[in-house]
Amino acid sequence: MSDVSDSVGDDAEREMSWNAWGDPARARALPLAVRALLPAMLGRVPRPAAAPRIDEVRVEPSALPDAAADAFRSALGDAFVRTDPESRIRHAGGRSTPDLLRRRLPEQSVPDAVLMPADAAQVQQVLSVAGEHDVAVIPFGGGTSVVGGLDPERGHHHAVVSLDLRRLSGLVRLDEISGEAELLAGTSGPDAERLLAAHGFELGHYPQSFRYATIGGFAATRSSGQNSAGYGRFDAMVTGLRVVTPTGGLDLGRAPGSAAGPDLMRLFLGSEGVLGVITHVRVRVHPVPTTRIVEAWNFPDFATGVDALRQVVQHGGGPTVIRLSDEAETGVSLAQVGRIGRALAKGASAVTVFEGDDAEGRRSRTAALMSAAGGTSAGQQAADDWAQTRFDGPYLRDALLDSGVFCETLETATTWTDLHRLRTAVTEALRTGFATAGAKSFVMCHVSHVYATGASLYFTVLAGIKGDRLAVWDDVKHRVGDAIMTAGGTITHHHAVGRDHAPWLIDEVGETGIRILRAVKRELDPQGILNPGVLIAEDPRAED
Amino acid sequence: MSDVSDSVGDDAEREMSWNAWGDPARARALPLAVRALLPAMLGRVPRPAAAPRIDEVRVEPSALPDAAADAFRSALGDAFVRTDPESRIRHAGGRSTPDLLRRRLPEQSVPDAVLMPADAAQVQQVLSVAGEHDVAVIPFGGGTSVVGGLDPERGHHHAVVSLDLRRLSGLVRLDEISGEAELLAGTSGPDAERLLAAHGFELGHYPQSFRYATIGGFAATRSSGQNSAGYGRFDAMVTGLRVVTPTGGLDLGRAPGSAAGPDLMRLFLGSEGVLGVITHVRVRVHPVPTTRIVEAWNFPDFATGVDALRQVVQHGGGPTVIRLSDEAETGVSLAQVGRIGRALAKGASAVTVFEGDDAEGRRSRTAALMSAAGGTSAGQQAADDWAQTRFDGPYLRDALLDSGVFCETLETATTWTDLHRLRTAVTEALRTGFATAGAKSFVMCHVSHVYATGASLYFTVLAGIKGDRLAVWDDVKHRVGDAIMTAGGTITHHHAVGRDHAPWLIDEVGETGIRILRAVKRELDPQGILNPGVLIAEDPRAED
Repeated sequence: MSDVSDSVGDDAEREMSWNAWGDPARARALPLAVRALLPAMLGRVPRPAAAPRIDEVRVEPSALPDAAADAFRSALGDAFVRTDPESRIRHAGGRSTPDLLRRRLPEQSVPDAVLMPADAAQVQQVLSVAGEHDVAVIPFGGGTSVVGGLDPERGHHHAVVSLDLRRLSGLVRLDEISGEAELLAGTSGPDAERLLAAHGFELGHYPQSFRYATIGGFAATRSSGQNSAGYGRFDAMVTGLRVVTPTGGLDLGRAPGSAAGPDLMRLFLGSEGVLGVITHVRVRVHPVPTTRIVEAWNFPDFATGVDALRQVVQHGGGPTVIRLSDEAETGVSLAQVGRIGRALAKGASAVTVFEGDDAEGRRSRTAALMSAAGGTSAGQQAADDWAQTRFDGPYLRDALLDSGVFCETLETATTWTDLHRLRTAVTEALRTGFATAGAKSFVMCHVSHVYATGASLYFTVLAGIKGDRLAVWDDVKHRVGDAIMTAGGTITHHHAVGRDHAPWLIDEVGETGIRILRAVKRELDPQGILNPGVLIAEDPRAED
Repeated sequence: MSDVSDSVGDDAEREMSWNAWGDPARARALPLAVRALLPAMLGRVPRPAAAPRIDEVRVEPSALPDAAADAFRSALGDAFVRTDPESRIRHAGGRSTPDLLRRRLPEQSVPDAVLMPADAAQVQQVLSVAGEHDVAVIPFGGGTSVVGGLDPERGHHHAVVSLDLRRLSGLVRLDEISGEAELLAGTSGPDAERLLAAHGFELGHYPQSFRYATIGGFAATRSSGQNSAGYGRFDAMVTGLRVVTPTGGLDLGRAPGSAAGPDLMRLFLGSEGVLGVITHVRVRVHPVPTTRIVEAWNFPDFATGVDALRQVVQHGGGPTVIRLSDEAETGVSLAQVGRIGRALAKGASAVTVFEGDDAEGRRSRTAALMSAAGGTSAGQQAADDWAQTRFDGPYLRDALLDSGVFCETLETATTWTDLHRLRTAVTEALRTGFATAGAKSFVMCHVSHVYATGASLYFTVLAGIKGDRLAVWDDVKHRVGDAIMTAGGTITHHHAVGRDHAPWLIDEVGETGIRILRAVKRELDPQGILNPGVLIAEDPRAED
């Protein structure tokens, strides 16, 4: 066991573009092939007005009372309580398409201040001061929410602050024998992997937000990474959590298996900052794999491919990654951002990756199941292409938005039996919704997370909206949410609830379930200062 | 998908001995070899007085108010509200050693009535009537609790009833494509497997209580079966729960993977009847395996064996069962009840079982890891012996208790790194505790559940107590509980909390964790009628 003091320090540069995805240096123009395709697919759309520069954006003056600001400053130090417009704009929301469209407006809603605590004790102090001064607090990790989890809503409170946790970064402890690491919650995906790799270990959690999102954010939103077939959802990786709440701390996860009452850790996985602030996350880690085999597959159609994926997961083929694009996504090669639009492929394409122990044996067993189910191996190249551009999808969205095309993603999951019904329902709701607004749309879908009993469905939709893109999407999104619930899917497989999915949580857990969440919230956060309106609507019984 | 109306009916005979484990026909005398060993190991102990017959046991008259009894009868029918002494004695507790010793007393605490609802609607009615008449309700499945989960404590209520759920038995629905089955909560282990096997499926959950325990009980106590390496803990098998609470119902588990807020299903897994009554359980099932390979192993010592098990689970060997006895348990062949005391084996013996897909490949990979870690294959026989007597341990305990020897089991879990420290701490606490009471003891241990980051430890202790066996054990059990917590273990890996482990729950989840459990309990069961005193001590803030 190592007591590790590795830390990435306070000065690591991980800031995203303030009004687009990721690293400005990686932004890309729309490939010519795509630009050529779009008018035929979606009709001509007006090119939007140029977006403002950050110093042109108008924001309200900070409403943080002076006494609160002073108390925050004395807790954190002056440098870590920021009220300048740029800091506030950079914490104004996440990275959903509506978020990005709002970043193009001349006037924007922003938090009243950005707080940057150095450790769990300072987080506790922030919550105390916020309680005393009736200030709402929005925990902020990588800022990659795509469900409105970071909107600067102050609810019935005097002000709202963004609690940026990225100074809580580092590897606290590594138990090499047990394969368990404790990371500070604000550690980014790449920093976590870099710190672990120095000791020969890997976490293996690679959602599309990997480059920016934080370990605490993965936990708070029940993230699922591209290697989930091999290493499980983030839920399954977590072995312990430390949480600060307005009324006390928690240190959960005592043993790898326990029957000591309900697993309370599971109340904080998915709590999205409304019950407490996660400060430390213990995770299962594995030795950095030395073997990596990739293989792409073609299926005559999506249904055949889905059945093959089911066989693989139910019969223990053992891929680290397995994903399948439908005919539409395969047709435009969306899964390989680098090749997009180049090859107009037919059928449904799949990617498999095998890392670690017995990789070749697992590839061979998976290949046998894929072949028997009607698949044809397509070799290595297409799978490599996917792997190389696996985090680049969001840059393409920015380019589309710049060109006036609407682009957004959404996801759900259900049993294998209900998967096709759910896909049809969502596709129809998207098409009908856009058509009602007079917009042509193009819907693509893939399966990226498989379970013994079912799988996720991830949709990418492009639409040629001529009017108000935010208003049209708001209507379409509501139609899709309703369609998902009617078809028996979950409102979110891995994007979380935030504000955008909150209206459907009652369909997921029922009235009694909402009462449970409210009761826990009232107990831990009686003033309701934590992320008001996220996950559950504000509680009428909260103390004033 | 099949809509299945299979039911095992109301008349299935599954009643255990009222004062011993299991089927009276399977009760066995102490093997001669064991009787010969005991005096040398534990000293001579007095043979206890003969236990009373069931009709000799004195019980208090039922305190159930007539109005409540009438209301229960009108809800369930006269035949299903039982107040006769025999029915009440048969629901007086579980099957821990203290429970069995209490069944030998002339006067016994019993519930005031036994209620047998037919369905979820009747369960809801029972909770309404119980609330109106201030009657405590103890959900009762197979009656196999070994942690005081079924003690007939009425708390501050007028009376206490046992809610026997075994009429809620049957397979409601089977989705053969998704590998998912819905079972009524009162279905016993064998009935569940029989109903599923008729369709070619298996659940694969085989705890030692399998023959009597119920599906709802497995869920409510976070059970772990002998095949947990292959099929996971019961927690991991559950995909959905339907729960009736005093203030509303829940239907949880919408998709195989979801990020729609905290997984509230996990609040009811392990809720031990204090938050609601589980009526339906949806579980992941797999085709009945057609291949089964067993292989026993010997290790020079327990530590070498533990390291081998760790290698196997961390490198994906893939056994369905893997377990390892320490030197003491190996020495008396306790793991093979049929052979007990016959062979005085040396070292540490292990059993592996491989079922289903690629069984031979998994055996071969596991064998390579076991050999490399210092193990020697011992072939098939010892593993077969274990498999054939895998549910028979508790009968041996009855024979020991009859002969005057004290015998009990307890279990915990921790990380691989802390496993030996925890084992030493528990062993020392047991030995010291018994020695303080002037009793010799013999402590055996095995690992039966493995995880990437750690494993469980299961202890069997024999002691030659000359005085009050209940009083001595109460003292020893408290020493062991404290030792487990100090050494960083969990107070229970799979036996649950009940009343016996409730004092340590605060060490597991902290004060804030207890407050969360109380808040949820207050919301769902404001009168505190459900299983008062189990899991969490009675809440001073409960409504009267």
